[in-house]
Amino acid sequence: MKSWKTLDRRTILNHNKFLRVENHVLQLPDGRVIDDWAWIITPDYINVLAETKDGRFLIFRQYKHGVDGTSLAPVGGYLEPGEEPLAAARRELLEETGYEADEWLNLGSYVVDGNRGAGTAHLFLARRARPIAAPDADDLEEQELLFLSRDELEAALANGAFKVLAWTTAVVLSLQKLAD
Amino acid sequence: MKSWKTLDRRTILNHNKFLRVENHVLQLPDGRVIDDWAWIITPDYINVLAETKDGRFLIFRQYKHGVDGTSLAPVGGYLEPGEEPLAAARRELLEETGYEADEWLNLGSYVVDGNRGAGTAHLFLARRARPIAAPDADDLEEQELLFLSRDELEAALANGAFKVLAWTTAVVLSLQKLAD
Repeated sequence: MKSWKTLDRRTILNHNKFLRVENHVLQLPDGRVIDDWAWIITPDYINVLAETKDGRFLIFRQYKHGVDGTSLAPVGGYLEPGEEPLAAARRELLEETGYEADEWLNLGSYVVDGNRGAGTAHLFLARRARPIAAPDADDLEEQELLFLSRDELEAALANGAFKVLAWTTAVVLSLQKLAD
Repeated sequence: MKSWKTLDRRTILNHNKFLRVENHVLQLPDGRVIDDWAWIITPDYINVLAETKDGRFLIFRQYKHGVDGTSLAPVGGYLEPGEEPLAAARRELLEETGYEADEWLNLGSYVVDGNRGAGTAHLFLARRARPIAAPDADDLEEQELLFLSRDELEAALANGAFKVLAWTTAVVLSLQKLAD
């Protein structure tokens, strides 16, 4: 299948480090030109579902502006400029929970919006996690750390308690991996 | 946990029906004010993994600008203004493949960006799908319809062949549901 040709791209909104928007003028293989294709540039991010040695899952109950309330959430955060996804995942796990983990499973990297970009989500399962420090998170959101059993995690997933797309994806991919 | 207070919201980019951006001035429970919180308004969308009566899964191989190439994809599309998610899912299945389905399972609704909104993804599994018409899609993208076996679907998922976040989520939630 032939690629679309980008005839022009220019920044139409440069808001801050969390959002820039481009307009793309695109030519389709059949010759048609689309002159107002928005392209969203937001930072790539990681989510990590961390499991302790005794089979508890580190989950936050967290306020999020995007859900206008609270949601359950795995560890997550944006990549720093130039940072590798796994390094960001280790850093966020340590900052947010004070844990590190012995075993890291890559659950894949996914474009957030197949049409307009909006960054890439890198998902991980971390096993045999153990506390090595006090948490040192700089998140704006209030949050509370829970230690869910596998049954509690499965029930929360089934109940839609992970209200953000990437969080549900990280949890269900992890459960699939753990069932293998 | 206390909600953040929205002190001001105003449109800073009104691009087209696929993208509007607001700036929110937010007050945190501790009194701090964030004056440049971007809020992304894109249409809500559905994805449907459809399974035929003989256990084949309707999957597209599709060009997508967002992945700069091709990806496997379940049926998907934006909600029309005022349209219910299930109605949109039935409509898109029929338009894109010519199939309708007897059994619909709701896989949940998820905010795409927990910080900045970017719409809600509504995910479905449709079972006992059967052809009733010719496809009549108006998508810009080139695509080819495949009929994958369960084993082929599982292998494609494991290989990261569904490159867009919501597509992987719809597939893995469906496989979890089918395993119950």
